[in-house]
Amino acid sequence: MSDFNVKTSSELETLLATRRDGYGMPRGFYHDPALYAAEMRTIWLGGWLFAGFEFEIPNPGDFLTITVDGSPVLVLRDDHGSVRAFHNVCRHRGTQLCRKESGHVHAIVCPYHSWTYSRQGELVSCMGMHEGIDKSKLGLKAVHAEVVAGLIYISMAAAPPVFDGLRERFEGTAKPQGFARARIAKVTEYEVEANWKLVWENNRECFHCVQNHPQYVKANFDVYEEAYASEAIRQKMADAVARTESKWAAQGVAITHAKGGLAPFPDPDRNTWYAADRTVMVEGFDTESMDGRRVAPLMGDYQDADVGVLRMRTMPNFWVHGSCDHAVAARLLPAGPRKTIVRGYWLVDQFAREGDDYQLDRLLPFWQLTNEQDWDICKWQQKGVDSFAYEPGPLSQRKEYNVDAFIRWYLKQMRAGGPSGNAARPSSRAT
Amino acid sequence: MSDFNVKTSSELETLLATRRDGYGMPRGFYHDPALYAAEMRTIWLGGWLFAGFEFEIPNPGDFLTITVDGSPVLVLRDDHGSVRAFHNVCRHRGTQLCRKESGHVHAIVCPYHSWTYSRQGELVSCMGMHEGIDKSKLGLKAVHAEVVAGLIYISMAAAPPVFDGLRERFEGTAKPQGFARARIAKVTEYEVEANWKLVWENNRECFHCVQNHPQYVKANFDVYEEAYASEAIRQKMADAVARTESKWAAQGVAITHAKGGLAPFPDPDRNTWYAADRTVMVEGFDTESMDGRRVAPLMGDYQDADVGVLRMRTMPNFWVHGSCDHAVAARLLPAGPRKTIVRGYWLVDQFAREGDDYQLDRLLPFWQLTNEQDWDICKWQQKGVDSFAYEPGPLSQRKEYNVDAFIRWYLKQMRAGGPSGNAARPSSRAT
Amino acid sequence: MSDFNVKTSSELETLLATRRDGYGMPRGFYHDPALYAAEMRTIWLGGWLFAGFEFEIPNPGDFLTITVDGSPVLVLRDDHGSVRAFHNVCRHRGTQLCRKESGHVHAIVCPYHSWTYSRQGELVSCMGMHEGIDKSKLGLKAVHAEVVAGLIYISMAAAPPVFDGLRERFEGTAKPQGFARARIAKVTEYEVEANWKLVWENNRECFHCVQNHPQYVKANFDVYEEAYASEAIRQKMADAVARTESKWAAQGVAITHAKGGLAPFPDPDRNTWYAADRTVMVEGFDTESMDGRRVAPLMGDYQDADVGVLRMRTMPNFWVHGSCDHAVAARLLPAGPRKTIVRGYWLVDQFAREGDDYQLDRLLPFWQLTNEQDWDICKWQQKGVDSFAYEPGPLSQRKEYNVDAFIRWYLKQMRAGGPSGNAARPSSRAT
Ligand code: FES
Ligand code: FES
Ligand code: FES
Repeated sequence: MSDFNVKTSSELETLLATRRDGYGMPRGFYHDPALYAAEMRTIWLGGWLFAGFEFEIPNPGDFLTITVDGSPVLVLRDDHGSVRAFHNVCRHRGTQLCRKESGHVHAIVCPYHSWTYSRQGELVSCMGMHEGIDKSKLGLKAVHAEVVAGLIYISMAAAPPVFDGLRERFEGTAKPQGFARARIAKVTEYEVEANWKLVWENNRECFHCVQNHPQYVKANFDVYEEAYASEAIRQKMADAVARTESKWAAQGVAITHAKGGLAPFPDPDRNTWYAADRTVMVEGFDTESMDGRRVAPLMGDYQDADVGVLRMRTMPNFWVHGSCDHAVAARLLPAGPRKTIVRGYWLVDQFAREGDDYQLDRLLPFWQLTNEQDWDICKWQQKGVDSFAYEPGPLSQRKEYNVDAFIRWYLKQMRAGGPSGNAARPSSRAT
Repeated sequence: MSDFNVKTSSELETLLATRRDGYGMPRGFYHDPALYAAEMRTIWLGGWLFAGFEFEIPNPGDFLTITVDGSPVLVLRDDHGSVRAFHNVCRHRGTQLCRKESGHVHAIVCPYHSWTYSRQGELVSCMGMHEGIDKSKLGLKAVHAEVVAGLIYISMAAAPPVFDGLRERFEGTAKPQGFARARIAKVTEYEVEANWKLVWENNRECFHCVQNHPQYVKANFDVYEEAYASEAIRQKMADAVARTESKWAAQGVAITHAKGGLAPFPDPDRNTWYAADRTVMVEGFDTESMDGRRVAPLMGDYQDADVGVLRMRTMPNFWVHGSCDHAVAARLLPAGPRKTIVRGYWLVDQFAREGDDYQLDRLLPFWQLTNEQDWDICKWQQKGVDSFAYEPGPLSQRKEYNVDAFIRWYLKQMRAGGPSGNAARPSSRAT
Repeated sequence: MSDFNVKTSSELETLLATRRDGYGMPRGFYHDPALYAAEMRTIWLGGWLFAGFEFEIPNPGDFLTITVDGSPVLVLRDDHGSVRAFHNVCRHRGTQLCRKESGHVHAIVCPYHSWTYSRQGELVSCMGMHEGIDKSKLGLKAVHAEVVAGLIYISMAAAPPVFDGLRERFEGTAKPQGFARARIAKVTEYEVEANWKLVWENNRECFHCVQNHPQYVKANFDVYEEAYASEAIRQKMADAVARTESKWAAQGVAITHAKGGLAPFPDPDRNTWYAADRTVMVEGFDTESMDGRRVAPLMGDYQDADVGVLRMRTMPNFWVHGSCDHAVAARLLPAGPRKTIVRGYWLVDQFAREGDDYQLDRLLPFWQLTNEQDWDICKWQQKGVDSFAYEPGPLSQRKEYNVDAFIRWYLKQMRAGGPSGNAARPSSRAT
């Protein structure tokens, strides 16, 4: 399909080569439609994407839908209880099958001419067709799906990147948070007027936190890079680590990032596109809330509040912060060179009930503010980067090492043609 | 004009060749802007388009306007009572002349600098210009116009396709419906979020009717293809044919499609882009209304209700269903690769008065429902077809022979460079 | 930067050559995105643009912002009282610095990571960066700025066109109007659905005035070209000139265009892109108001009403009409091949107060009407020019000599690659 050949790959090479080590990326990276198209097939259709939470589709026939760069995908639980994903596209004349964000089906019946697929994706009926149709060749096209620690990942690549490392890392670190036993307290869909890479670059440093996120810096040590932190700050962190570790040794709630500043991520040299770390909080903060006090019942395996913050991320579209009592996640989907749709999720324990166990006006503000402050920054950065006079400046080696890492990771993917070493192609294996 | 050369005609050839016999068309056909541009000049500016009804402009100076792919056209009745069409563009500095959807003019006066054209399109005044302007060279540019059985057709082609076959067919078959003596009871403009070809493919089969149009299948035999209909159904149809024919023999109300299923159309092998057929209705249905009972006074030459349904179609932008008491038409205009504007018309006899002779809430629902059900289907088909994983499936030889015929007709036009064998070029003959 | 090479310059040459002497410009000039891009870098980023009035930023630290084709610019008064302009783009990661239309700053602090620039544009602080950052290389990128007679002009060109001629002409002619001692009574932002060149062509003739601007032709002699005016009209003009001159001799309020019709402008042969002229008004009109009576206190140096109308224009984005008591200006900014943003300003003396000294319902209508009548014309001209059948017609040698002059000026700029002989390039000189 001509759409999926790399168009003017030498032009791409040339653009990729314009980035100067230690500096931001030039203007073209943030507004060129052809580069955007290349990113879609290489990074977004070639890698693993967070699609949703397993608890959203608890029973056979439950489904959720997600559309990535115009390609609709259906994620559903099959008759045997497994999570599967399919291209949400009828094999007859291409109609999108399931239309709602989530729902339940006994079978997948196309609303156009009633071709009917089982929950395993097999074509089981196509009344009205002529003799000789080979139904076995017309099952739904499969999309790769994996579930780990309650998170659902999909890949539209023919040969997706290896998932094992992520599975190993997340199963160990994320289990206590209990994502599989959670529920959604609130979902907000944000339309961010910025390129998806600006959203990530914003996420990959806390250089901007003091000026932009007053509520955030009160709770976390992110702004204190190890080498530059005062002795007092170091002592505070050490105390917090000791406090937490003493309670949780051997129960999976280990502090894995005990230094100030952000843990390094991504790691382009080791090709690491996922991370899961636990950090301590500032004394007086039990959770990421405005006043530090708990805002919901304990989640998962947690037995008291002193668990710090679990932070997980996967390139290119997911992150989550888990406190003792709630977790806040973000799922990114690009919508053009200058627009990104971010779905923000606030999760609580599956048995927590609004009004009784938690109040939205206490649960939401910390990340609602942080999110909206960040989207505003990204919007104005996009406007500046659009200038013909924009010239990338130096990245702070103290505070923006992860922005640099993100850029190097990105360039590596683009040069290699995607995480799996090749761009997305529609998989034709049925079910 | 470089706009009107076929750009990368070999790319076009390649795309056209990707369609597999008996299957739908690949993704590129439904979202590529360059292909869309080629369709505009080849099919839309090269062929005949339904513009409106003759009764809309009964008197000299009455006009209606229509804009096709950004080119505005003026259709008006001239001083001698003939229907003419012109490019609705001033010959001075190009201002659009008449702006309303319809109206009346004594002369066509440009609102910018008052250049004034007669109703025959001649430039009669251009006060303020210097000496030596040759007014005879600056008349409005003519657009071909034809009227048949009360329908107005225009063509912007330099050499439009032959109109004789359509004239002959429509004059005989359509006359009893009395389109020339009708009025508009209601017009609705629909913005359909789908490529214009998806709208036609939807129109060219009733495979989808059982699931989507419960009101429609009660009234019509379209879903019963001859070879697959039960003996009971065949008997019902035969009875209905006999009943109608006995009344109407030799009065022009002949049943021309007496079998179930859709009459074959278009016919790419004979290059037939127009059709007019009369079908019988199911017993108990006098008209296409929700309960089958009449909703308005008889139209045209009809003397009682038993006239079946007159169905007329012309590629690429018109169809109508005429019952004994009303007719419902659709005029298509493309508005980009993913959008089509459909104007729905409900016609009744010219003397029928709302409230007294008909009620809109009884007249409209049958086709309002059918239209909106179809536009919804088309929207979701577009979303699925947009997927990079979309792959055209087999067309039912029993039920989608006309979809196949449409695709073959379309490919033939595109290969030949349009109905007239060459793409549109602005005609420069004045008046 | 590949964006700023002339793409397919031979295609550009070909298009430019399609214009026929004495006729309008062909369709491609008004809808082609590639040509639009070329115009942006050649004419808009290569020339001088009116940005605002000096009185809008009276004190050090006062600023206004303007975005030209996606490139945001900051205009501010520095510590020494000079007006300066900078690319409004942080040298760190490119964020737009000042966001409001106007405001005041002590220093320019980037809202992202607090890089701080002086009002002279020097980077004075970048806390959090690593050692070894050379701040002297990271000042804001300068944009050329000039102030003349209270008007602020900017140029983003590396080597802007010479400004001396304009300075000389405006200082002499515009001084009495007192632009430097005015205030804004009203600003209106219009979104005109037309190419910026159609807006100028409309501005460059009064052929359309009789039919479209009844209020305008009552006040002004524009529609009476010298060679075609009646003896009575000539006498009226001569009387008005004599009346004005007798009062104002040697005070800078000379009638410089004493003939009917529009003064010639622009002058492509002398490369004149600015003009300032004073014309007389029709007897009974003291100002450009609906009834000719004054609508505000006298402005500037004027001592009574009999000053005619001061008209100033600069290509490609500014004009103003100054009466004795108020002035009405327009600042154009293109927003795509089919859209232009026009900011309309109504100015009065700095001490005039709404309600006491002037009423908006008497001040605004004359030009509000004239503006809106013109934008409507331009919109419908764009729709006609979009037609594939549009063919440019002859320009009136009597009435459209300035449209012809505009077209020739435009073609000359485009052929030469811009007013300064070369297209815009980001200037890298700091402060
Ligand atoms: S498109 Fe799905 S059944 Fe026809
Ligand atoms: S554009 Fe029509 S008269 Fe000038
Ligand atoms: S982008 Fe301005 S300080 Fe970082």
